[in-house]
Amino acid sequence: MDYQSFLISRSSTKTDLFIGNNLFKEVEEFTKKYSQIVCVIDQHVFELYNKSIFAFLNWPILVITQGEDAKSFSTVEQIIQFLMNLNCCKNSALLAIGGGAILDVTGFVSSIYMRGIASIYIPTTLLAMVDAAIGGKTAIDHKKAKNILGTIYNPRAIFIDFDFLKTLSENQILQGKAEMFKLGLVYNQALYSIFQNNQLDFSAAIQAIFGKFSIVQKDPEDLSLRRSLNFGHTIGHALESLSDFTLSHGEAVIIGCLTEAYLSYHLKLLPFQDFQKIKNEVAKLKLSLPENYSLDECLKALSFDKKRIGNQIRLVLIEKLGKVASFEGQYTREISVEDLKIALKWMENFYGFKN
Amino acid sequence: MDYQSFLISRSSTKTDLFIGNNLFKEVEEFTKKYSQIVCVIDQHVFELYNKSIFAFLNWPILVITQGEDAKSFSTVEQIIQFLMNLNCCKNSALLAIGGGAILDVTGFVSSIYMRGIASIYIPTTLLAMVDAAIGGKTAIDHKKAKNILGTIYNPRAIFIDFDFLKTLSENQILQGKAEMFKLGLVYNQALYSIFQNNQLDFSAAIQAIFGKFSIVQKDPEDLSLRRSLNFGHTIGHALESLSDFTLSHGEAVIIGCLTEAYLSYHLKLLPFQDFQKIKNEVAKLKLSLPENYSLDECLKALSFDKKRIGNQIRLVLIEKLGKVASFEGQYTREISVEDLKIALKWMENFYGFKN
Repeated sequence: MDYQSFLISRSSTKTDLFIGNNLFKEVEEFTKKYSQIVCVIDQHVFELYNKSIFAFLNWPILVITQGEDAKSFSTVEQIIQFLMNLNCCKNSALLAIGGGAILDVTGFVSSIYMRGIASIYIPTTLLAMVDAAIGGKTAIDHKKAKNILGTIYNPRAIFIDFDFLKTLSENQILQGKAEMFKLGLVYNQALYSIFQNNQLDFSAAIQAIFGKFSIVQKDPEDLSLRRSLNFGHTIGHALESLSDFTLSHGEAVIIGCLTEAYLSYHLKLLPFQDFQKIKNEVAKLKLSLPENYSLDECLKALSFDKKRIGNQIRLVLIEKLGKVASFEGQYTREISVEDLKIALKWMENFYGFKN
Repeated sequence: MDYQSFLISRSSTKTDLFIGNNLFKEVEEFTKKYSQIVCVIDQHVFELYNKSIFAFLNWPILVITQGEDAKSFSTVEQIIQFLMNLNCCKNSALLAIGGGAILDVTGFVSSIYMRGIASIYIPTTLLAMVDAAIGGKTAIDHKKAKNILGTIYNPRAIFIDFDFLKTLSENQILQGKAEMFKLGLVYNQALYSIFQNNQLDFSAAIQAIFGKFSIVQKDPEDLSLRRSLNFGHTIGHALESLSDFTLSHGEAVIIGCLTEAYLSYHLKLLPFQDFQKIKNEVAKLKLSLPENYSLDECLKALSFDKKRIGNQIRLVLIEKLGKVASFEGQYTREISVEDLKIALKWMENFYGFKN
């Protein structure tokens, strides 16, 4: 037998990040290098900005129904058909304009069409600006499994245009703040105190964006440090999923962060004063557990989590406000079902939930 | 406006290559590191080896109908459903056993399931051993567009087990020889003289495998040198596609290599003696153009080629037997429709084709 091992280095990707207001001139300038631009736009965004912006763009536009439903094989096929009809080649670029779902599905198609064409993101929600747009994770859902399929594929440029925030609802702002709050807990405590009012501090948003970039640059393929960004998301996803998505992602993540912070305290990693600060911050919001919540359903949902290895349930924990806990270079730790139950029961009690 | 550019380095992949006979013990040893192994097997291979090999494997097996039809969204969904039913996680591995189509589609699913799980390839045809298994290109077709979707994603291990070649037909051996012949023309002239008889020289196969690895290691993302592997494939794909796949891929590639070699000679890049050697080698085979061939259909098929930039048709050319031509660091060159027509007419004449 002949045996040989080959190391194959993958090339780097350069992502240009533009932050400001009214960036459409910069978008036009940047896109000149591509032989063809194809826009994929969220329907709601298209209706809001059709007269003011999109009427002046000369690019083919595919309008996609908004929301999580967009992240399906059928949208993937729809975008691919659109690209094929336009005879798009390796030097074409896909421009995604919308929230996280539109970015996720358009990025996914960019990563697989002709084994990868350029993508450019214009996130229009705060959540997409501070989260989905950064780090190259693309995703689609299959059956009920959220983000079960995807790639890691960075866009060539991201345009964070704060003008789009003017048309967002309070709840949409909260969705973005939930991820900024999480970044505050694992990475930069300056970001955690965010629920005082409904306003958005733009400098905090910029800090969150640079903070997430800094983490994903250190671990683009999500093998170690980047997993710390899953803080709050293991329990958060379980709650969101069992609620049949009546609980928003942001609300679920905030409750998840609080409960995983409690677990960190319970496991003697997080000092009590830090946990108190986190609890007091979350208490500023009026949240509640989904009506159809039950401990058993929640544990069942947790056992489907993507971060598990075999049958273990693994969670990210924090060791102080603004600092993720590391376990011999790993950023997740196996959690026993007993400890999980203790944390979930504390959560039930905090939200006055009675079975 | 705030502007910043982020360079995101992607990690390297290590691919272990095993070459020999009866490698199933090595496969079992290698796979121990994964929490779960799921096999995707070509139906024909499964039927041939069910009693001798697969009866002893304790892994879940998904049998896929062989051939190009396997490379579809519906197979992708079938494999994903299988993985989900088995509750596969990030530490599971997909083991593909079959020809290029099975490797391509299984590799594609590996690259997108949970944003990437390990894949292991056991190619069972000579073509898959010297071509599809090496270099990480995964692919599926959509509508009539061959390989229009895919990723670049290297398997963790490749087991080249020559025992599988015993059950191959002469035509299947020819499919592999076609790619070895191409490697001979662009990279290593020791490989070009291959059509003397129906036998296979194993040492030539090993040279071809190492040759392809050497090229893809220098350019894993197919941005420059690797494109030289498309030699013969631009015209080859066009012929294969217009024949409605009655012409096999290998036959089409051989005719493509000959015609693109003629074009290289016509453009004063390739010396006449080298072209003569190539022509004499191909003349050892009894090939003919597809019945429904016409110059117009062929030019139309060429205009859909994936390597084109905008509306240009670009081809790989050779400057001597065993050496690809480079144009200021580029390995493709724009070809005028006039020159293409001259080459295609030469090809028609060589094969005695009459309209």
